[in-house]
Amino acid sequence: MPQPASHSQTLALTCGDPAGIGPEIVLSAWSQTTAHGRARLRVVAPAELLERVLADVPALPRLRLRGVAAGDAAASTADTVLVIEPSRPCGPVPRGAISAAGGQAAVAALETAFDLTRRGHAQAIVTGPLHKEALRLAGHSVPGHTEWLARACGLSDASASMMLWLPGESAAPTGSHRHQGLGVVHVTLHESLAQALTHLSTDGIVQSALRLAPLLAAILGRRPRIAVAAVNPHGGEGGLFGDEESRLIMPAVSALAKAGIDVSGPLPADTLFLRASRGDFDGVVAQYHDQGHIPIKLLGMHRAVNITLGLPLVRTSVAHGTAFDIVGTGRADPSSMLSAIDVAATLVERGWSGTASA
Amino acid sequence: MPQPASHSQTLALTCGDPAGIGPEIVLSAWSQTTAHGRARLRVVAPAELLERVLADVPALPRLRLRGVAAGDAAASTADTVLVIEPSRPCGPVPRGAISAAGGQAAVAALETAFDLTRRGHAQAIVTGPLHKEALRLAGHSVPGHTEWLARACGLSDASASMMLWLPGESAAPTGSHRHQGLGVVHVTLHESLAQALTHLSTDGIVQSALRLAPLLAAILGRRPRIAVAAVNPHGGEGGLFGDEESRLIMPAVSALAKAGIDVSGPLPADTLFLRASRGDFDGVVAQYHDQGHIPIKLLGMHRAVNITLGLPLVRTSVAHGTAFDIVGTGRADPSSMLSAIDVAATLVERGWSGTASA
Repeated sequence: MPQPASHSQTLALTCGDPAGIGPEIVLSAWSQTTAHGRARLRVVAPAELLERVLADVPALPRLRLRGVAAGDAAASTADTVLVIEPSRPCGPVPRGAISAAGGQAAVAALETAFDLTRRGHAQAIVTGPLHKEALRLAGHSVPGHTEWLARACGLSDASASMMLWLPGESAAPTGSHRHQGLGVVHVTLHESLAQALTHLSTDGIVQSALRLAPLLAAILGRRPRIAVAAVNPHGGEGGLFGDEESRLIMPAVSALAKAGIDVSGPLPADTLFLRASRGDFDGVVAQYHDQGHIPIKLLGMHRAVNITLGLPLVRTSVAHGTAFDIVGTGRADPSSMLSAIDVAATLVERGWSGTASA
Repeated sequence: MPQPASHSQTLALTCGDPAGIGPEIVLSAWSQTTAHGRARLRVVAPAELLERVLADVPALPRLRLRGVAAGDAAASTADTVLVIEPSRPCGPVPRGAISAAGGQAAVAALETAFDLTRRGHAQAIVTGPLHKEALRLAGHSVPGHTEWLARACGLSDASASMMLWLPGESAAPTGSHRHQGLGVVHVTLHESLAQALTHLSTDGIVQSALRLAPLLAAILGRRPRIAVAAVNPHGGEGGLFGDEESRLIMPAVSALAKAGIDVSGPLPADTLFLRASRGDFDGVVAQYHDQGHIPIKLLGMHRAVNITLGLPLVRTSVAHGTAFDIVGTGRADPSSMLSAIDVAATLVERGWSGTASA
């Protein structure tokens, strides 16, 4: 495993849609993160936007802003935000509402951040929340950052996926095994539950776990313990309640074990997530959207991070939305952005390329 | 609402399968419960069994045992267990393992407890955990206590259902609204997820909520706030991810609102349970097994209670199993039994008959 490469890495932060809480959580996180000690941070955004948000939201820390060029090697510090202007200028964005300007600004920042990584000026991208509808109004046909990045890499939307990462609470050791966090990938996601059931496959489960394991290994610095969730109540109760377990999941678990993955399953989803929350597993392969999202939200979604899988780059993102309703109130919680910055720095240190194989 | 009828009520406790942790949690709960202050407690079990468990498990409290007749009006106290012998004697039960004797003993105690309620000597039954396989070995065709009771009442198995009740933690007020607890009923339960989807119906959802609401009203002493879960991710995302929400759930929610229920929905299941855990709702109608069980287990299954719905009697039960692996170790947690006793006493005080309509 590569040694930590202190300060040889640069993280490019974007605010997502500037109409949402993105700029606020980026500025809060800038002043609170300990990542300045191990990476150079940059915010890719119009300085004018950040100035306005700092002036408008008294709860934010008093920060100075300084524009820097793409290749500037200056270290970042908690009191001065180092700003890289997006290559494409954008018009003013009304805050707290859906707008085409917000969608355009989000994509402009992402374009520049992506360009920085291509030119070697940044090693990871950390994105704030955007709004699908604003993106659509801005004339973009992609549903989000991830698909934009997939296409920018010359890949299909489907080649990219996400791991939801819930960092362990540092002061909460669980039993004898320190709980470092929990990563969840989904075999199916944004489709009806009925369709998801027809789209489950042994190969889909295997591929999900094979993406999950090396990412977790990079985060944790050790071999991760993966659990594969059952689909049916009580894990199918020996075939009484459905056959997805014997027909699809058990063959996948066998294949994964043969591939050297530390894997358990199929496990009934209710006890699986209880055990995972106690530190018995590092990663879970969830079969459908709500199976993974119900527990992650209960366990602390405000701290959760999305990590992009399947693309040749390091990119993390907040796991929450634009929260238009609390824009400017000072109530925006930077926890997810802080986690996203932290895990991006760790992934770069560990030499994660975005698509390593197990 | 009827006034509390202190000490005019008797609760009949059973151990479930004596081979499991049932006797231990009944004895622990007997010494810890505050319900002696408002009800007469009885344990329906062979005194010889309880004596043996007390002798074998040093971690249990030092309790005396006293046999009483069915109609005895003696108050119960924390230091002396008042024991009613089951009408049918049973052979010795090997502890910590599945056996026909264990299944027979569980049914014998339940029979006597049911008989006590029919003769007016008890107003509620509180049951310990049993094991389906032991019941089958004992020659019983019912899968559990609930179906046994349904048939004893001359009703079909399907007429009875369960509410999972997670009592609020007394010291944990949530925001401005004290969180009293959360009740969950399931529209579908022990069948494959694919079958469950085909069995969802507007009528099933309405009937589930109409059973849930009056039970919660009896527990809480006020009108409950009910939420109905969506089936699909993001609640169907306006029809993009499935039509169960518009086709089945919305008509049910409208019908329930017309019937005077304080009802919300369909709500995406992940945010719904997060909000419910914060005290926004008192009850949830879950559409399938894991949708309700994943969050309840994470939120504190060891404290959860099953409450029987649809039968003309008050019956509560622990929500956990026989835990053969920890029998005799002193590690059995009586929390669920304590909650089951407490909520049974409350339901009798409030005049709940088991089948009140909204």
